[in-house]
Amino acid sequence: MYLGIDLGGTGIKIGMVDETGKIVYSSSCPTRANEGYKAIAEDMAKLIEETLKETNKEVTDIKSIGIGVPGCVDNAKGEVIYTANIDMLHAPLAVELKKYYDLPVYLANDADCAALGEYFALNDENVKNLIAITLGTGVGGGIIIDGKIFAGSNSVAGELGHMVIKSGGEKCGCGRCGCWEAYASATAIIRETKRAIKENPDSLLAKNAKEEGEVNGKTAFDAAWAGCEVAKKVVDEYFTAIAEGLTNIVNIFQPQAIVIGGGVSRQGDKLLNPIKEHVYKYCYGSGLVDVAKISIAQLGNDAGIVGAAFLGK
Amino acid sequence: MYLGIDLGGTGIKIGMVDETGKIVYSSSCPTRANEGYKAIAEDMAKLIEETLKETNKEVTDIKSIGIGVPGCVDNAKGEVIYTANIDMLHAPLAVELKKYYDLPVYLANDADCAALGEYFALNDENVKNLIAITLGTGVGGGIIIDGKIFAGSNSVAGELGHMVIKSGGEKCGCGRCGCWEAYASATAIIRETKRAIKENPDSLLAKNAKEEGEVNGKTAFDAAWAGCEVAKKVVDEYFTAIAEGLTNIVNIFQPQAIVIGGGVSRQGDKLLNPIKEHVYKYCYGSGLVDVAKISIAQLGNDAGIVGAAFLGK
Repeated sequence: MYLGIDLGGTGIKIGMVDETGKIVYSSSCPTRANEGYKAIAEDMAKLIEETLKETNKEVTDIKSIGIGVPGCVDNAKGEVIYTANIDMLHAPLAVELKKYYDLPVYLANDADCAALGEYFALNDENVKNLIAITLGTGVGGGIIIDGKIFAGSNSVAGELGHMVIKSGGEKCGCGRCGCWEAYASATAIIRETKRAIKENPDSLLAKNAKEEGEVNGKTAFDAAWAGCEVAKKVVDEYFTAIAEGLTNIVNIFQPQAIVIGGGVSRQGDKLLNPIKEHVYKYCYGSGLVDVAKISIAQLGNDAGIVGAAFLGK
Repeated sequence: MYLGIDLGGTGIKIGMVDETGKIVYSSSCPTRANEGYKAIAEDMAKLIEETLKETNKEVTDIKSIGIGVPGCVDNAKGEVIYTANIDMLHAPLAVELKKYYDLPVYLANDADCAALGEYFALNDENVKNLIAITLGTGVGGGIIIDGKIFAGSNSVAGELGHMVIKSGGEKCGCGRCGCWEAYASATAIIRETKRAIKENPDSLLAKNAKEEGEVNGKTAFDAAWAGCEVAKKVVDEYFTAIAEGLTNIVNIFQPQAIVIGGGVSRQGDKLLNPIKEHVYKYCYGSGLVDVAKISIAQLGNDAGIVGAAFLGK
């Protein structure tokens, strides 16, 4: 058994994961985000204690503990270098947790853990290199090479959303203009939906949005599938932006698999089919070499816990 | 000693490389590009024979032979999958060469070999992950991870020049629009120089080009360093395009080092300084983590031979 912990800005989630990647028990508690790493480690230790008790397991039944962190880590030192939403800077979180439980404790970035979780979920012996993309509020990325997380020299690699695909384009939260995230995130399609509504107040898209009282990441899709041409244009341009980034990723990494998660991935084949068509048409060496299979992520929100647990596998 | 062979569309170059990466002997012959892999292997064997004779070495003094190929290879099978300018398709080149010399024969893409050569030339124990960029007619890329070439699942990875940085922009030879290569290659600055001359026929840039009777990859630089504002704008935009791609590479890989080669790299610090400023300002996690050192490639045209030789190291 492995323990996987997904540390988030609002909550800490724990899961006990068996050898097959199944979560046999899970629990959570709020994150004391402003009380430092010792408080975080204390709460993690409580969750572990509870998990062992509820599953009738001993510490000796656990092979390792893995923690996915929304930030940058130094796993060798057992240290969180920084996080965006939790008050930690060069915080020896793994070192602290080991004081409670004498087990190997691994740290990794949370998006990287999610990628590792999806890698194990795919469970395809022909896939050793995989890229996981999350299309949500932002665009997250995780890189698996030879079955392991590739996090670069400083654990910050894989910021695939912050690859500029349209230099000089839309402003991104990271400070650059034209990042993939600024075109392929749910936030981006909401922005474009609002623009299209403003320009086309009589469209079905505009009517639907008015009835619903809001514009969200699904608004354009729903209107497009109902036949609205204005919405179709928004969706087509959005898909093209996603596909442009994915084609870059294929040309750079040539992985065997790409998995797409996040809220937008619920569009399933309606998302996958046009994207695949674009990628397979435009990628380098198209027709001459095998190109990555592109599929929808399987684990959803559990990917982070499973991946964190399997850091020690 | 190691033998490195750089197979090109017009010539086959061989080098005997010592443990330190020094080429102790080199030679070459024309490429019989249309006579198939057996002719290529035959010529390589002749070059090897000559090299051993001239250096007074025996086959037993050689640890391995490495071949850099301008295309796609399957090293495990000892096969060239395809090349752009030489008539080979699923050609068992390494298998054939082994018939002449019973030594390990390794195959890799030539840009990847060049990256490996630069990696060894850098000889920095803190650098395990390195990206090599060649700014020439095109934009080539090679990825070194953990001291080894990363070529993806099909040996075609690392086509960094075919990463779109301006979706919908300039047409690229690969079929996409807006590739990095279409903005950061010598070909790109020549195109922009010609455009600028047309729009500014009275500029120093235009006068210089007229006197020289041609526009080449240096024309804009020479005029810019002589004070021409029109040329400066061309150069500034060119540097920005290079830096945009490099920032992407930092965000994706977070390598310890990036080395820049190719004709354009002869601009030295005049190229490096503005590019570094852009990359270090805009890369993700700037100021919080160590970011790649960016430098000019050291080996020039020898990188391919040294890297090929060290495939077996």
